[in-house]
Order: sequence, then C-alpha cells, then structure tokens
Amino acid sequence: MSDFARATAVTARDGGGFDATIDDGWSIGGRPNGGYLLAVVARAALTAADRAHPLVISGHFLRPPSGGPARVRTETVKSGRTISTVRATLLQHDEAVLDTLIACGDAIEAEPDWVAGPPPPIPAPEECLGGQPKDQYIELLDRVDVRLDPDTAPFRRSRPSRTAQMSGWVRFHDGTEPDTLALPLVADALPPTVFTIGMRGWAPTVELTVLIRGVPSPGWLQCVASTKLVAGGWFDEEADVYDSRGQLVAQSRQLALVGRG
Amino acid sequence: MSDFARATAVTARDGGGFDATIDDGWSIGGRPNGGYLLAVVARAALTAADRAHPLVISGHFLRPPSGGPARVRTETVKSGRTISTVRATLLQHDEAVLDTLIACGDAIEAEPDWVAGPPPPIPAPEECLGGQPKDQYIELLDRVDVRLDPDTAPFRRSRPSRTAQMSGWVRFHDGTEPDTLALPLVADALPPTVFTIGMRGWAPTVELTVLIRGVPSPGWLQCVASTKLVAGGWFDEEADVYDSRGQLVAQSRQLALVGRG
Repeated sequence: MSDFARATAVTARDGGGFDATIDDGWSIGGRPNGGYLLAVVARAALTAADRAHPLVISGHFLRPPSGGPARVRTETVKSGRTISTVRATLLQHDEAVLDTLIACGDAIEAEPDWVAGPPPPIPAPEECLGGQPKDQYIELLDRVDVRLDPDTAPFRRSRPSRTAQMSGWVRFHDGTEPDTLALPLVADALPPTVFTIGMRGWAPTVELTVLIRGVPSPGWLQCVASTKLVAGGWFDEEADVYDSRGQLVAQSRQLALVGRG
Repeated sequence: MSDFARATAVTARDGGGFDATIDDGWSIGGRPNGGYLLAVVARAALTAADRAHPLVISGHFLRPPSGGPARVRTETVKSGRTISTVRATLLQHDEAVLDTLIACGDAIEAEPDWVAGPPPPIPAPEECLGGQPKDQYIELLDRVDVRLDPDTAPFRRSRPSRTAQMSGWVRFHDGTEPDTLALPLVADALPPTVFTIGMRGWAPTVELTVLIRGVPSPGWLQCVASTKLVAGGWFDEEADVYDSRGQLVAQSRQLALVGRG
C-alpha cells in the first residue's frame, strides 16, 4: 500500500460514515494540505456511492484542521445513471472542519475530443528546483516531490514578480503513480501563487473546487497555477494539472486568504 | 421591485426553509438558467445567515429544474466572524434539483490590492450583437440584455472557431443595476462556449462554482468565457465578469455536458 493510499484510507463505521486519520506527514508547518483533505473525503464519497472516480469536488474549509483522528459523514444526495452526488463532511473533535459536495462517476474519457492547446512549456524536472526551502521545513515535501520552474520559484527571487504565476512538476516520492484521487493534492501542492508577488505566510483556503478531467498517465504531473485578483485580503488561485502525455487531467480554483505571517 | 428581485424572492416558511417561485422568464427553451437558480438559493442562504453578500457559491445540479413552485432548505454549517457557510438545497416536487454550499460574508473590498491585468478589450456594447437568435426564442434574453462580441458570436459564424472563447456585455433590460446576487446569472448568461467550436444543443450544467470578488459598479458588465477541454462528452467553461470600471467582480467555472440536440 502506498503512503498516499494509507494516508487517505477510510474505514466504514458501524451506523454509517467513516473513520480516517489525518496524517501529519501531508502538512505545511503543521497544517494539513487542503488538497490532501479533499482526497480523504473523496475516498469516503466514492466508497459510499460505489463509484470509481471523483468528477467534481467542491470543498468549503470551515475550521483549521489538524493531524489525528477524524470522521467523514457521507450523504448520497442523488444516485443517477452516470453520476452520484455525495455530500461528505470531515469532522474532528465532533466539529465540521471541511464540508464538500462531490460528483462521482465511473468513466472518465482518456482521449480528448477538443483541446484549447498544449500545456505551457516549462523546463524538465531535473532543471527545476526541488527539496525543502531554506527557511521552513514542509512535511508534505518529504512525501511529494515538487520541482518548481526556476523562473517562477518565489524563494529564489530577490524581488516580487509582476505576474502571480507558478509552475512545476509533482510526483510521489515513493514511486506511486498518480490516480484520480491524487489530483486534488497535486493541484494544491505548489506554494501559494501570491508568494511570487511578495505576499508570504500561511494562506488558508476558504473554498477549493477541483474538476477531474482524466485518469492520469504514469509519470510526472505538470502543474500551472496563477492568480487574477487580490482584494480585501482574498485571492483566487487557478491550477491546471497535465499528465506526462500533456493531457489536462485536473482544473482547480480556490479562494484563499492572504497570509498573515 | 426589479424583475430580478421578484424572480429571486424567497419567503420564510413556518418550520424553517423558504418558498420560492422559479420564474419561466429566466429560462432557455423552458430550462431555467443555472446562474439564475444559484441566485435564488444564494438569496435564501444570505437571509438564513443574515449576511450581505455571497463570497463563493458551489452548486451541483442534480435534476432538470422547471418553472413553478420550489422550496429552499437551508442549514447553517458554520457561523464565523467573517464568514457564514450555508448548505442550501433547492427542491421541486419534494426532490432536490440543486444542492449548494455557499460562503456568505458582509464586506467585499471594492479596491483591488493587486490585479493580473485589465479586462481584454472588446467592442463597445453598441457594436456588439444583441436580441434573440434567429433559430430559437430564449426567454432569458427578454430580461437580460446580452450583447456578444461579433468576433466570438457563434450564431454569426459560418464555420467553427479554433478557440472556444466568447465575450460580450450583459445588463438587465429593466434598468436595474447589478448587485452581487446578479453575478452568478451574468456569469452564466452567454451561450455555451462550445457553440463556437460547433457543438450545439442544450448543455446541462453538472457543477457551477462562482467566486464573488467585488460589488459591481452600475452599468454594463463584461463577460469573458472560455473552454479548455472537451472529453467524453464533458466540457469546462470559465467566465470572468468585469464591471463598468474594469474591475474583476466574479469568476465562475462549470463542468457541463455537451449538448445532445
């Protein structure tokens, strides 16, 4: 069993719902990664609905999560021919920390009918910047190999970028190939895009929606993230995830708060 | 009272929840516009949470909606200092047709701290194409004045575009100025972007998330929509809405099914 499968495992409870354990290894300075938490609740939703893949995960983050025991409450809102929609809520200490609506299905088409374009070209993984940043230990980076395009890596720049864009490559350190449940994590694995424009600190996600568009091929995943507006302390972040064949396999968007240190 | 306020009005029910009437005037060939439905449930959520503006609306469309009586069930999931999160479900004939999670707040900053860029230039409203299309009567277009950039108007092209992009201007016909509740409607008011690449027919939305980024200034709203991938019958559609000052006031993304005629 891979690290990721173990960290996102859920166990059915007597009387309904699931037990889970939020693994501290997928955190950023003690705060579990939002995409990782979406993967945990999505696994519970898929199990509850008996479906193979999440299609859309809409997650609202309600309270700061932490490592340790958790519970997932699921409610199948609609069970259709193609799609089952599940409300799945992650609870810790009997309080909801993440509430989601998840559309689940069985088939995701591998071959596109139409694409707007190929992924933007970025340097190969071996030419990108990996490892831990100098000023902080990030638990997640011991599980997930994140290689940032040097042109967009915020920790390397002496002055803020004029564009809030970041791109890089992502894969599991233990050699596990990505599946559709890994995509929310990958879409949320890069540092916040606003780091590139000099806005640092923990940036808590308020809402994160991930569209799963394909089953990823084995290999590195390319992640391209950007921000359009920072206003009143809020910023948006869009991320597109492409697999090793260059197919768009996930699209995410989040609304988050600019870090307060 | 404006047409829009009347069409999205909700009345508290004894014992909880709200009554609403889905107005046939905001439909496309008998099918109520998805953004309009989000506005109805968001109004119920704001009333339930006693908040001024929606911040993020995540909606999952479960069953085909229709004009006529409806009920909105609300549950305040979390009531915080800055944000109240409400689950709001639209029911018709005692079945859920739309399930949502809505983050609601009071303050939305008018002045941006940082923007990626200005809205893309498009021709002025009087140089764009308004009115009903030749081949279909669209109820919504009698309430909402939609002016399509001629370069991106699908009904005018003799052959498919190579980009799935559409842009135009939107305002209410009755002179009502837009508020934050109008933004989901505006973000979903243009024809489906895939019409530009020759994929016609009713395109049912499966999921639609709208981020509200600002209180719109009076005047025309500019809407810029695009699609990145069509695969297995599914397509994404992103829309950015700018107000008359050129400020980004809403960002939406949906997953929808390619029309089947």
